[in-house]
Amino acid sequence: MPGMDDESILGRIQELGLELPAPPAAVAAYLPCVIHGSLAFVAGQIAMSGGEVLHPGSLGDGVGLDEGIQAARQAALQALSALREALGGSFERVERILQVTVFMASVPGYVDHPKVANGASELLAEILGELGRHARAAVGVSSLPLGAPVELVMTAAVRAT
Amino acid sequence: MPGMDDESILGRIQELGLELPAPPAAVAAYLPCVIHGSLAFVAGQIAMSGGEVLHPGSLGDGVGLDEGIQAARQAALQALSALREALGGSFERVERILQVTVFMASVPGYVDHPKVANGASELLAEILGELGRHARAAVGVSSLPLGAPVELVMTAAVRAT
Amino acid sequence: MPGMDDESILGRIQELGLELPAPPAAVAAYLPCVIHGSLAFVAGQIAMSGGEVLHPGSLGDGVGLDEGIQAARQAALQALSALREALGGSFERVERILQVTVFMASVPGYVDHPKVANGASELLAEILGELGRHARAAVGVSSLPLGAPVELVMTAAVRAT
Repeated sequence: MPGMDDESILGRIQELGLELPAPPAAVAAYLPCVIHGSLAFVAGQIAMSGGEVLHPGSLGDGVGLDEGIQAARQAALQALSALREALGGSFERVERILQVTVFMASVPGYVDHPKVANGASELLAEILGELGRHARAAVGVSSLPLGAPVELVMTAAVRAT
Repeated sequence: MPGMDDESILGRIQELGLELPAPPAAVAAYLPCVIHGSLAFVAGQIAMSGGEVLHPGSLGDGVGLDEGIQAARQAALQALSALREALGGSFERVERILQVTVFMASVPGYVDHPKVANGASELLAEILGELGRHARAAVGVSSLPLGAPVELVMTAAVRAT
Repeated sequence: MPGMDDESILGRIQELGLELPAPPAAVAAYLPCVIHGSLAFVAGQIAMSGGEVLHPGSLGDGVGLDEGIQAARQAALQALSALREALGGSFERVERILQVTVFMASVPGYVDHPKVANGASELLAEILGELGRHARAAVGVSSLPLGAPVELVMTAAVRAT
């Protein structure tokens, strides 16, 4: 598989009216993305905007569907940015997205998980085309770090160096 | 490792009085199963029966232990069906099950997660024998897509083509 | 990559005033750790102490931050023990830790997930150094097996035999 063209992907993100966020800073205790062979494990991403959690709260209790979708999209963009950074600042070695888990803080009885998670899934397909499609799980949880409504975990296939 | 014999596995499922469900349909936004090298990532499976969610609700609040176990078994069967479909409609290339995560909608204070998850784990071992045994996590969550009581995520090892 | 030295790691654990717990017993339905190629999947670990769940309950409702951190550290030690056992009783073949998911039972509105998960992440870095650093997700859930406050799932890279 030939991998991807970095410029095309950046162009596609721009065409969609989006911006690739700065890669998440490495923190002391863990890494934003770990590469092993042909696998890339991206750490759980919480949508941030201007240094603040985007739309804090729970789905079904203060956070609406559109806000959840927006958080899922932004978390997916951040995951792509972490992946690109771990690959030396280029998407060139990315082969495809393999798996995405979308955890969402939500009240008992919440049922719109697929719609929220589609925010991330559809964005990955819009940006990366067929290679952005992935196996997915959408899971409603009681709470997430910093009060975020969505946390996205991504695994990708990369060309081994 | 030689992989598995498709007919034997289908026969074993029948012997157990079960039926391999039709593979989950591909949806727009994501894929039921993604293969990469010798790894297969199966998307989160929610037990369905006749087009409806099986035993909707939460464990400890309307959904009983036996219903949870039944949902976990059915979700495991669906995961096997998704895996088989992604491998061209045969279990022949399956080497073993690696990891299973069983999320279950459950009330705070619920403690029977292992019993529910055993529904899936024991079924995989009954069908696939030693190669069906896997690393597992069982996790109680606040809600799942469509009000399902159980969502099962599976990773398997496959013979690379 | 040269892998690790078993004695050095055991010495490091001792230096930190800790003890590697006995590996979790294999149970009927699943395995404590599955190795496939260069990947090791460790089953979800719940911190145990003297045969009992350590600090049962939920974070934010009876279980304090320090107790949560202690449970996360103990679960990480157990995960290392399960990994070592699956590799024939030595850390020699371990290349690095890839991914850690820390599920924690917690009330809605809980926000200290990163602090609890750091208990595990920092311990892995203290024991294994740079090779202990990993991609991480921290997720608050409604309940965990046996009333545990923390469940830790770990994936590691190992030298294939």
